[in-house]
Amino acid sequence: MARPSGSDAGVTGPRVRDAAERLFAAHGYAAVSMRAIAAEVGIGAGALYHYTPDKQTLLFQLMRAHLEEVIAAWAETDPKGAPADRLDAFARFHIQFHLDRPEAVFIAYMELRALEPDNFAVIETLRRRYEAILRDILAAGVAAGEMQVADVPLAANALIAMLTGVTTWYREGGRLERGEVETLYAQMALGAVGAQKSSAKTF
Amino acid sequence: MARPSGSDAGVTGPRVRDAAERLFAAHGYAAVSMRAIAAEVGIGAGALYHYTPDKQTLLFQLMRAHLEEVIAAWAETDPKGAPADRLDAFARFHIQFHLDRPEAVFIAYMELRALEPDNFAVIETLRRRYEAILRDILAAGVAAGEMQVADVPLAANALIAMLTGVTTWYREGGRLERGEVETLYAQMALGAVGAQKSSAKTF
Repeated sequence: MARPSGSDAGVTGPRVRDAAERLFAAHGYAAVSMRAIAAEVGIGAGALYHYTPDKQTLLFQLMRAHLEEVIAAWAETDPKGAPADRLDAFARFHIQFHLDRPEAVFIAYMELRALEPDNFAVIETLRRRYEAILRDILAAGVAAGEMQVADVPLAANALIAMLTGVTTWYREGGRLERGEVETLYAQMALGAVGAQKSSAKTF
Repeated sequence: MARPSGSDAGVTGPRVRDAAERLFAAHGYAAVSMRAIAAEVGIGAGALYHYTPDKQTLLFQLMRAHLEEVIAAWAETDPKGAPADRLDAFARFHIQFHLDRPEAVFIAYMELRALEPDNFAVIETLRRRYEAILRDILAAGVAAGEMQVADVPLAANALIAMLTGVTTWYREGGRLERGEVETLYAQMALGAVGAQKSSAKTF
C-alpha cells in the first residue's frame, strides 16, 4: 500500500499515536485491537496500516518517544551547577514532565511486559540512560561532600519512584498547586540524600 | 449449581485466586477471560463458577485481600515506640511485604481502572486506611519535634511510592541483600522527613 502523502500523513500519524496511547492506558495493550485504534481515530482498519505495520510497533514507538523526549528535555533544563542544585532542578523537572503525560507514564510501567525482546532491550537502554542522569548527579554530590548516599544506583531508583508517584495522586485544581508540590518533593529528595540547596545553606 | 464440598473447595479456591492474579498481572484484566482462568487452574469453565460469580469479583477480592492483609500485618509489626523508630520499622515492613507479592502490587496499581464504582470505593477506603498509618507516624514525628514535614499527606504518598518502587527493580540473588535494601530505603525515608533513628542519634 502507498503511504498517504503530504498533510494527511502529517496530521493522522500523531492522531494514531494519541489514540493508541489513550486506549492502551485505558484497557491495556493486550486488550486493544488494531480495529479499535482505527475506530478511535475515525479511519478504516485497512487505512491504519498506512501509519504503522502493527500494534507492537505502535507500543514500541510510544515508549521510545517518551524516553527520548524526557532525556532531550532534561538536557535543555540541566542547570549544570552544584550537585544539590541540579538534584533540586531534576526533581522539579521530573515532576513537571511526568504530570503532563500521565498516560505515557502508566504505559511505560505497565506494558514493559508486552514488549518483544528486541524492543525491550532498546527501551531498557533508554531507561538506564535517563536513570544515569540522576546517578551522575548523586555521584557528583557525594564527591563534592554535598550528599550522603550509601548506594548510588539504589538511591536513584528510589528517588525516581518517589517523584514519578506524584502522577498517581496529584489532580489539577486540588489542595496543592503544582509549584508547591515540586518544592515539597524536591525538599524530600534532597533530604533523602542528606543534602540541601546551596541557597538554603547556612554559613 | 451446588458448591463443591469439603477439601475440594478449600484447595481449589486459592488456586483460582492465584491463577487469576498471575494472568491479570501478565496480560491485564481486560485481556483475560474466565475460560483462560479455568484453563490455568485445570478445571472446566463451568466449574469455575462454583468459586466466583464473575471476573470482576475475582479482581475485587484479590485487591481487597491484599490491602486487608497489609493492614493486619502492620498491626502485628508496629513497634509503637518513638515516631522515627516507627517510620524505620514501617519502611522495612512495607518493603518486605511488597517484595513478597510483586504481582499483587502490580495489579493494585494497574487495575484500579478496571474496578466497578462500588468496588473502587471499597478499595480506595482500604488504601486510605493503609496510608493513614504512615500519615499518623509522620504527624506524631512532627508533634514530637523529631521530623520536619511541611505537608503530611503529600509526604506519606511520596514515601509509599518510593518504598513500593523497590518491586520494579529488586531481584533476589542480585548485588544487594534484602536486608541491605531495607536499611538503605529506611535511611532515605528518615532523611526525607528530616529524622533519624533514635539509636543513631548523637547526644
